[in-house]
Amino acid sequence: MDLRAHISPLTRLQPLDPFVLELGGRLDEVVVAYRTWGVYRGNNAVLVCHALTGNADADDWWQPLFGPGRSLDPERDFIVCSNILGSCYGTTGPTSRNPATGRPWGPDFPAMTIRDMVHLQAALLDRLGVTRLQLAVGGSLGGMQVLEWAQLYPDRVAAIAPIACSGRHSAWCIGLSEAQRQAIFADPLWQGGHYRADRPPAAGLAAARMVAMCSYRSWTSFERRFGRRRAEGDTGFAVGEYLAYQGQQLVRRFDANSYVTLSCAMDTHDLGRDHPSFEEALGAIQAPALVVAIDSDVLYPSEEQQELARLIPNAELAWLHSEHGHDAFLIDMEALDRFLVGFRAGKRLHTF
Amino acid sequence: MDLRAHISPLTRLQPLDPFVLELGGRLDEVVVAYRTWGVYRGNNAVLVCHALTGNADADDWWQPLFGPGRSLDPERDFIVCSNILGSCYGTTGPTSRNPATGRPWGPDFPAMTIRDMVHLQAALLDRLGVTRLQLAVGGSLGGMQVLEWAQLYPDRVAAIAPIACSGRHSAWCIGLSEAQRQAIFADPLWQGGHYRADRPPAAGLAAARMVAMCSYRSWTSFERRFGRRRAEGDTGFAVGEYLAYQGQQLVRRFDANSYVTLSCAMDTHDLGRDHPSFEEALGAIQAPALVVAIDSDVLYPSEEQQELARLIPNAELAWLHSEHGHDAFLIDMEALDRFLVGFRAGKRLHTF
Repeated sequence: MDLRAHISPLTRLQPLDPFVLELGGRLDEVVVAYRTWGVYRGNNAVLVCHALTGNADADDWWQPLFGPGRSLDPERDFIVCSNILGSCYGTTGPTSRNPATGRPWGPDFPAMTIRDMVHLQAALLDRLGVTRLQLAVGGSLGGMQVLEWAQLYPDRVAAIAPIACSGRHSAWCIGLSEAQRQAIFADPLWQGGHYRADRPPAAGLAAARMVAMCSYRSWTSFERRFGRRRAEGDTGFAVGEYLAYQGQQLVRRFDANSYVTLSCAMDTHDLGRDHPSFEEALGAIQAPALVVAIDSDVLYPSEEQQELARLIPNAELAWLHSEHGHDAFLIDMEALDRFLVGFRAGKRLHTF
Repeated sequence: MDLRAHISPLTRLQPLDPFVLELGGRLDEVVVAYRTWGVYRGNNAVLVCHALTGNADADDWWQPLFGPGRSLDPERDFIVCSNILGSCYGTTGPTSRNPATGRPWGPDFPAMTIRDMVHLQAALLDRLGVTRLQLAVGGSLGGMQVLEWAQLYPDRVAAIAPIACSGRHSAWCIGLSEAQRQAIFADPLWQGGHYRADRPPAAGLAAARMVAMCSYRSWTSFERRFGRRRAEGDTGFAVGEYLAYQGQQLVRRFDANSYVTLSCAMDTHDLGRDHPSFEEALGAIQAPALVVAIDSDVLYPSEEQQELARLIPNAELAWLHSEHGHDAFLIDMEALDRFLVGFRAGKRLHTF
């Protein structure tokens, strides 16, 4: 492995053996797929944490944040992004081989948490020789990882930027997750998770994704983009056609067991777990934090970001004003980049 | 039929033969199931329009609005509530017999609109000898009917009170409807709608209802009620248990083809259809209108009610402040009753 390569291709590494999970599961073989950008110089590491169905190709899905003068500058930074535990883009997850059976884990993949994702990222950084992060940054599920980084490894992360996320998954988010899982389980091809790779529960996973896509956007963004426009060929409404396409796309690129495993992991998210209280857990975070709130976010309403910024002692709150809803962190990226550039330069933006 | 009965049981009546639908379908046999309260005196009729999975038992689901001094007073009013076309509580719908085959319509039930529901209600009122309504009132899908009443029968309705609804179904609502339908279609028991009555697509319909229930409430209401509390027996989160129960309850009491038919009818909702514009259609409504907005409504955000109140010439807007979301019109009923009592007494409440 050439750490001096400017941009690494997707690389797979087995950092720990075995890996014991927070909820009691054990993985005797764990592989992490990751990418890096830039050259490590000892004090310039940045960790990018991806969202639910994301991957390690951060310069693809966060392209506007990459480059000279941007938040993530490979000339200055050594940037690491790894596919999260439980996913299906190279890191160990339900599609990986269960060494006990020689077949894919499928629904027997052990229950896991956000903390497990973070511990695996820390093990990867150990292997890469990265002792300390200048910044951990991510949106949605990525933001949850960022918060846990500050809690689990306070000595290893100098600053955090959690975006469009909460300190604990709300009943609202859990309810929407559960409804999506039930749509997957309703598909006859689900088979309790024991489906064949070439016969996935496509209809159920697509329906779940359609629900999720609604929750990722907003009333206004859908209205402006689609309104009551009919689909091509007048086969229905354009918004329905769009959602169906999004559903089909996810079926092509994502595994249903991974979707269920990761959505359950999100539901476990609670910084206060094993702490005297949620408030004390957040109050113990020492890293300077840039908390980014999206004002149209249906899933993680602004109140949750305000709460994070209030409870984390050294936090500032930035408002990403957008009509796009939760997904604005993947859409209004120029504005997000400006916030992060300012934060990294030590400029105060908006304070709580 | 004894019109003088103070409170009628559920009665079924065949008002028209045949009934031609807006989108071209034709029903040779149509039956309307309805209930009445009070005695008809020629100028005291009130029509109550129910929501998606509601029924004619308005004094059950809107109990606090019924009684002396209340919005709906059987001593003063002659109140009519009929089960809507396409439903499964007595009025013709997909579970009714298709006279052409002798078997239930199922998925062959013709596509229908909110306007069809209203025309059938008008036909019922013809049969009851009710020429003019003092008020048409309803929430959600009921409110859509109320708006169409003012547009289709301007000479027959003296005042309207549309609650928590829009003048045209938004892309957001259509998207959430479509995602729910896809969850139903993913169920192997759906069989293209040709399921047996004793083997309905329970898992798919339950998943759809779980999505719907989230959209009917709000982040705050779920958080206050459930938070991260675990279910009895620690089998999951309380919110998931609640939603699963709601899903099962709907499966017991509602037909999946009716659900699909009615949700598609809601998606057709557009007061501007066959009018020069949406604005002109609303501008032509002459009836005084009380538009009730729920500030936490996720499905029909307040902007839509403000738009209704702005475009309907003789409208006033009342804010139902509630954390319960869309369903507040079925929860915060004392406040709603006060608005309606004031409106009926001719008192201006809040004006736009």
